[in-house]
Amino acid sequence: MNIGFLGLGNLGTPIAENLLQSTQQLYVYNRTATKAQPLADQGAVICASVAELASLSDVVFTLVSDDAALQAVTTGEAGIAANLKKDGVHVSLSTILPATATSLAQLHDEHGSHYIACAILGRPEAARAKKLNLLVSGNTDVLETIKPVLEQCGAANIWAFGPEVGAANVAKLCSNFLIVSAMESMAESIHLARQSGIDAEQLMHMLTQTLFASPVYSTYGNSLLKEAFLTRRFHLKTRPERRNSHQRTILNGKGSTALR
Amino acid sequence: MNIGFLGLGNLGTPIAENLLQSTQQLYVYNRTATKAQPLADQGAVICASVAELASLSDVVFTLVSDDAALQAVTTGEAGIAANLKKDGVHVSLSTILPATATSLAQLHDEHGSHYIACAILGRPEAARAKKLNLLVSGNTDVLETIKPVLEQCGAANIWAFGPEVGAANVAKLCSNFLIVSAMESMAESIHLARQSGIDAEQLMHMLTQTLFASPVYSTYGNSLLKEAFLTRRFHLKTRPERRNSHQRTILNGKGSTALR
Repeated sequence: MNIGFLGLGNLGTPIAENLLQSTQQLYVYNRTATKAQPLADQGAVICASVAELASLSDVVFTLVSDDAALQAVTTGEAGIAANLKKDGVHVSLSTILPATATSLAQLHDEHGSHYIACAILGRPEAARAKKLNLLVSGNTDVLETIKPVLEQCGAANIWAFGPEVGAANVAKLCSNFLIVSAMESMAESIHLARQSGIDAEQLMHMLTQTLFASPVYSTYGNSLLKEAFLTRRFHLKTRPERRNSHQRTILNGKGSTALR
Repeated sequence: MNIGFLGLGNLGTPIAENLLQSTQQLYVYNRTATKAQPLADQGAVICASVAELASLSDVVFTLVSDDAALQAVTTGEAGIAANLKKDGVHVSLSTILPATATSLAQLHDEHGSHYIACAILGRPEAARAKKLNLLVSGNTDVLETIKPVLEQCGAANIWAFGPEVGAANVAKLCSNFLIVSAMESMAESIHLARQSGIDAEQLMHMLTQTLFASPVYSTYGNSLLKEAFLTRRFHLKTRPERRNSHQRTILNGKGSTALR
């Protein structure tokens, strides 16, 4: 089975590297071609265009930044849907709206190929450690066929959300909402603790050993304690001045006062 | 060492029962005397007044509903501070403001006795299973002396937050803030999932096995999924119509809409 991978960013690269370890032939494409070179050095074949990548692959993974980028590489004469072979599978790993998944699945259907939504829970280091959680939705038979390839991406677990293709995207957005809510409340709590004169490190240590002993609280809590806001790579597209204002809000714990 | 226990509510009763298992003599007092009877049946001695309880005990635990209730039993001629023997210890288990702890510690100091803040993380079933987390603050020597008694309360862990007596109360309020924030975001996320047509039970199952594999998310998430809002006993003093309005907000997931 020939595999294609498009989108060699922070998370795409380690996933493509995992696939390369167990795939006869991995085709890669990236808008910025230099990002594909390290994979080519490990044996992947760089394609000159999206159309070439699609036409050579049985299964194409895409991991691009947003809905517009995914639509750009999928639609049109030079896109994945028009160039993927009959019964080929497009596995979209991006965090996008469910409506985008539904419309792209329809487009693939018209071309006799398949679209599978596969949202990723896990950071680049989890991909390298093969401890990703994959949330999938779409045609059940197709999912069954490509399951070994999904496992080769570096999945520790695959969570199936049913045949409605946007379901995995809903689950991913609900998960992200919970992550960001936890980050905001931790930032408030850390600031409240410090303003009230107690050791916030000690508080978070206790909480992440007890009530909140979970990866989200440990990982992001630790970054918040160190005020290492930029190391977590949880990017939002926003104007720089807005991002800075948001960072200031977290830093200053706006809204919380000391307990007296 | 004679132990006294005042406040035999949902959480106070199992803690007092734990103490009874390893204490020569347990004195108990409750405003509603009938609540003390089951403990008396197990061997505890019911006192007729707060003053009697304090005068007979080396260590007095109190677990009352709020700051005002704690002040009422601690201050005045008939209160704990005036009746506890010299070097006696008052261990306050209630969730109160740090400022209340500071003022009561000062009062005990004037009477030659000690006040220790000991906030509890854990529900009644955790008390029965002896899996409580105790957050303590106050005089370090006094804490060292009473540590065995704290363990006998049903503690799995004792987390010391230093000699500043209100520190444990700050830590407890920060913890409660994080618990309530998690409950609110889970309610929103569950509603968003349902409105968007995916299985919220499946979503929460996945999340509590992965990113949010922690007691708070499992326990309260499960109650939210079942809409069992009144079973958790996380009480707030509020007018009934306000509480109902708050429940409606959680139930309706006000603020979230479907993902399309």
